[in-house]
Amino acid sequence: MPIYLDNNATTRVDPAVVAAMLPFFTEQFGNASSSHAFGSSVAESVRAARRSLQALIGAAFDHEIVFTSGGTESDNTAILSALATQEGRDEIVTSAVEHPAVLNLLDHLEATRGITVHRIGVDGEGRLDLEAFARALSPRTALATIMWANNETGTLFPVAQLAQMARAVGALFHTDAVQAVGKIPIDLAATQIDMLSLSGHKLHGPKGIGALYLRKGTPFAPLVRGGPQERRRRGGTENVPGIVGLGAAAALALEELPEEQGRVRALRDRLEQGVLQQAGPCRALGVPDGRLPNTTNIAFEHLEGEAVLHNLNKAGIAASLGSACASGSMEPSHVLKAMQVPASALRGAIRFSLSRDNTDDDVDRVLQVLPEITARLRSTVPA
Amino acid sequence: MPIYLDNNATTRVDPAVVAAMLPFFTEQFGNASSSHAFGSSVAESVRAARRSLQALIGAAFDHEIVFTSGGTESDNTAILSALATQEGRDEIVTSAVEHPAVLNLLDHLEATRGITVHRIGVDGEGRLDLEAFARALSPRTALATIMWANNETGTLFPVAQLAQMARAVGALFHTDAVQAVGKIPIDLAATQIDMLSLSGHKLHGPKGIGALYLRKGTPFAPLVRGGPQERRRRGGTENVPGIVGLGAAAALALEELPEEQGRVRALRDRLEQGVLQQAGPCRALGVPDGRLPNTTNIAFEHLEGEAVLHNLNKAGIAASLGSACASGSMEPSHVLKAMQVPASALRGAIRFSLSRDNTDDDVDRVLQVLPEITARLRSTVPA
Repeated sequence: MPIYLDNNATTRVDPAVVAAMLPFFTEQFGNASSSHAFGSSVAESVRAARRSLQALIGAAFDHEIVFTSGGTESDNTAILSALATQEGRDEIVTSAVEHPAVLNLLDHLEATRGITVHRIGVDGEGRLDLEAFARALSPRTALATIMWANNETGTLFPVAQLAQMARAVGALFHTDAVQAVGKIPIDLAATQIDMLSLSGHKLHGPKGIGALYLRKGTPFAPLVRGGPQERRRRGGTENVPGIVGLGAAAALALEELPEEQGRVRALRDRLEQGVLQQAGPCRALGVPDGRLPNTTNIAFEHLEGEAVLHNLNKAGIAASLGSACASGSMEPSHVLKAMQVPASALRGAIRFSLSRDNTDDDVDRVLQVLPEITARLRSTVPA
Repeated sequence: MPIYLDNNATTRVDPAVVAAMLPFFTEQFGNASSSHAFGSSVAESVRAARRSLQALIGAAFDHEIVFTSGGTESDNTAILSALATQEGRDEIVTSAVEHPAVLNLLDHLEATRGITVHRIGVDGEGRLDLEAFARALSPRTALATIMWANNETGTLFPVAQLAQMARAVGALFHTDAVQAVGKIPIDLAATQIDMLSLSGHKLHGPKGIGALYLRKGTPFAPLVRGGPQERRRRGGTENVPGIVGLGAAAALALEELPEEQGRVRALRDRLEQGVLQQAGPCRALGVPDGRLPNTTNIAFEHLEGEAVLHNLNKAGIAASLGSACASGSMEPSHVLKAMQVPASALRGAIRFSLSRDNTDDDVDRVLQVLPEITARLRSTVPA
């Protein structure tokens, strides 16, 4: 049985989530917008899922949830909506370590629409430069968009504080929380965050479904226009099985979050310490005490991460170089470059991302095979 | 067991489609973009689904298929892409009877971007005014977008011919074929259609997945930008179960299409003739011999469609006023208004849309209860 340690790329759908979805394919298959019996029972299940997601993220109202096709669509929607609604403001403040769903759109807008983008740097442990963030904000800022947790290192950003700073100049604040939701407690009502993106498949829900949290009263322009679904904020027939699955995943995450994340954190810590002690020279990247509980990114000096991964894969262990979205590319990660990871370690970073599906045996197995792999690779590397 | 005659709103997912999807939730759950073993087998299944959809629509190349979240996203993408890439062209030619996924976006673009939209009318049977279409095309036309089949009446449009006319003035041609794919043979390679939208849940596939056909060489600008998925034409983690489900639905449709659609057509014809004979005064709307095989839209003189539907619903029969996307609204259908259906019948139209799930018994049941319902309602209507 292969060991899966790439849960920041995607997670196994919880069997209870699949069970919750199944009736909506062949039995309650109606269109949620239809007025007949096939539609109305389905619409009620969509409402229940919305409330379940509301509870997980601490939204004040269930109608603050807009279901989308996933994190990328949510990110794109938030950014384009802010530009469309914040008249007279043509600047965006972001970080240098955002997901491509944010950075690639911003690059495009900068090139084609004359938008000015401020990409705030991070320090060697991945912390945002708060002074630079504050300096970049101005009455021209339409939106500040900063991720809640970095996908490659797990580093957490102080989004509640950043939202307050953005609001102080009249800008909107959005956070890509795709990696955070379900892994750490989130209480949006207690913050000034205007918009938040999340994705089902990162929290043991299905792929192809996500949501945009849109605080009540936030000006909004839809990305996808069509029928009156989602209070005219996102056209298209509701993805009922996906929505129900996301709702079920949210309920499970909320129920299991405190206990499971403590267990996952202990597994991650044991994995990280074991690797650092036995497979060195290497270093753990990211803020030691301000990270997601499930993520460790370890850079092996003078090794090619590709080679380490390939050997792990042969031993039945799946991890990742960084984000799956950048895999296949030979470029070092933009996140690690922004952190100014030294050249000797830049190409040797491996991300291990755990979930509640992992066990002590998984960690034992990695600690059994990884030191051998790195020792063997080091013995073949020219000095 | 209720009878479902609202298959143009959505269809029951074929149990074989669900079976094909299931392993991709809890077993082959990897990210298709991941390089490890969990990812690569999944990527192969995505390729197989793409080829299966290619075969159903007769695309020349499998990479002409871009998976999206559904028909509305595909329609929006096609329209915005044409405007972004057809420099110096700021007009769009469409019909007055398109789906809201086209018309609502065009209304918005007209109001906010100074785009000129030509909405070509139809005759009393729903046929497009070809002369007006030809007159509207010019060197300023960025895109002509005309649906393949109307969702409310089933009327087919001569899209191959319209594409040729659009190409002759250097415009792109897009068709919303959400209602046509899987119901009639489609051979895109033999046409000049540049872009085509389709949706999984209209052909016994899952909700939340669709595709945009993009002919090789067609200039393109993505709607959703992020990772390099779909050859950088649509960012976001691939909805693997959805894609596999759409592929399985396409394979079933291709295999069963000739035989099943003949059977469905016979059922529809018997239903329509029976209603016209026994539940009159009423009329069937749309072109008699140029419609989808599964759709009949029957307008009952001097009756409220809502009341007929409500009574059908009580008798365990689900049909529709028009499109599910407009349900809940008290406005008469924009399609029937464009067809200049007389005021006496405009509010009395009911759409019955069949699928391969329907049987002779379903038709018998409608013919048993509908004449009683209309007779009873007529007896209470003031003359």
